[in-house]
Amino acid sequence: MRILITNDDGIAAPGIEALWRAVRDLGEVTVVAPDTERSAVGHAITLAEPLRVADYAVPGGLTGHAVSGTPADCVKIAVRAILENPPDLVLSGINQGANLGTNLLYSGTVSAATEAAMLGLPAAAFSLASRTYRDFSAAAAFARLLAIEIGQRGLPRGISLNVNVPPLPAAAIRGAVQTRQGRVRVLESFDRRNDPRGRHYYWMVSERMEDAAEPGSGLDDAAVAAGYISVTPINFDLTDEAMHTALGTWNLNPGTFSGDRNL
Amino acid sequence: MRILITNDDGIAAPGIEALWRAVRDLGEVTVVAPDTERSAVGHAITLAEPLRVADYAVPGGLTGHAVSGTPADCVKIAVRAILENPPDLVLSGINQGANLGTNLLYSGTVSAATEAAMLGLPAAAFSLASRTYRDFSAAAAFARLLAIEIGQRGLPRGISLNVNVPPLPAAAIRGAVQTRQGRVRVLESFDRRNDPRGRHYYWMVSERMEDAAEPGSGLDDAAVAAGYISVTPINFDLTDEAMHTALGTWNLNPGTFSGDRNL
Repeated sequence: MRILITNDDGIAAPGIEALWRAVRDLGEVTVVAPDTERSAVGHAITLAEPLRVADYAVPGGLTGHAVSGTPADCVKIAVRAILENPPDLVLSGINQGANLGTNLLYSGTVSAATEAAMLGLPAAAFSLASRTYRDFSAAAAFARLLAIEIGQRGLPRGISLNVNVPPLPAAAIRGAVQTRQGRVRVLESFDRRNDPRGRHYYWMVSERMEDAAEPGSGLDDAAVAAGYISVTPINFDLTDEAMHTALGTWNLNPGTFSGDRNL
Repeated sequence: MRILITNDDGIAAPGIEALWRAVRDLGEVTVVAPDTERSAVGHAITLAEPLRVADYAVPGGLTGHAVSGTPADCVKIAVRAILENPPDLVLSGINQGANLGTNLLYSGTVSAATEAAMLGLPAAAFSLASRTYRDFSAAAAFARLLAIEIGQRGLPRGISLNVNVPPLPAAAIRGAVQTRQGRVRVLESFDRRNDPRGRHYYWMVSERMEDAAEPGSGLDDAAVAAGYISVTPINFDLTDEAMHTALGTWNLNPGTFSGDRNL
């Protein structure tokens, strides 16, 4: 099995090292990851600047390719320029911090898996649901388990798995469950300050979480809050079917599109 | 009606001026847009750097706020720090270039509308489906029509509309249709070059389009190719229901999560 590993915390982050250690004996493993932290970059790609690729190695540890781009860039350049053969599996993470609910729209970790799915490759994204809990061992063990499972079963084309692991020792984790993406989100405020020259600027501040899911709802954040690993299958089709039907009653063609000069 | 306008081509782009001109008499219109082009930034937000907000004015034309951030940043800072009252409608664009199929995952234009939807605000994103066709008048006229329609009907919470307009004079456009997001995507290659110091770097190159939709499929790119304006309702829930069901048969808890020391 050929495995490509990437992340958004950067190639020097402890989470990617833990992921690499957990799966490196499963096959031919290649690491292609951002050279610095690229959190909250969403599904950004780098079109206006060139990309640099540098060899990266930690003595006795992870070796790979450090890219001056985003997680989605890393998947693209790995598949299209660095690897001789396409990978059988793309793993992203392990992210330091949750990617749950609507927050996964901002996530470079998740976008790397989505990018792989868009290229037709099976993929999974892993996040440790805490900014401060530093023990990646349970998340790494589950990543290994899931990598083996995906290797045996495959995934439908265009689907990836978004995994969040609670910040607990393995023995305290209650299991893994399939979940749906919740609605939990961060409400931001903006802290206005003045610089030494008297010009103002703003810091975006994460104020609080909103719309957390109810226990037992089957949503990702509720599962993690209850001590379960959440596994949410995701695609990249944003179409809303109910509204698609409702739009049939809208008046989108009121004659003005038959050559009216107001157009 | 209070309308917030943003885009990803930057506040000085002709598309945002065309949009502003088309709707400015519909109510109280505020422009908060990136100070430079931010194409292909996806749903990125700026956490690691402060944001600057500068007044912007074109003599006899658009006035607004230029932000040193992404389209999603612009929506957040407008709603949370610039505007006294939340807008009734958020419009993004008019983008120079299509946002169809899987390409909308990379789109700052679409992400601005999605960000608004996440904040509970009705929103629409507008794109002129050409990099070279410069006549925004048909797209602007449709944006006005749709803004009025949304103002009257509202949109369900969490839904926005992704609109793509073919690069044609209004009289040649065949109408507007509700569509689903297609699968069309850009296949990239990487052009490897050497810099003057002999170090190599890569440019990402859009090689060709793949997975274009069949005529009559009801998918966004097929509609635009046939001369229709496509209107795709989108949400921000990436959950794949079929795979959610299938995961029920997976072996996600093989005893190792009952305290096994391998974790």
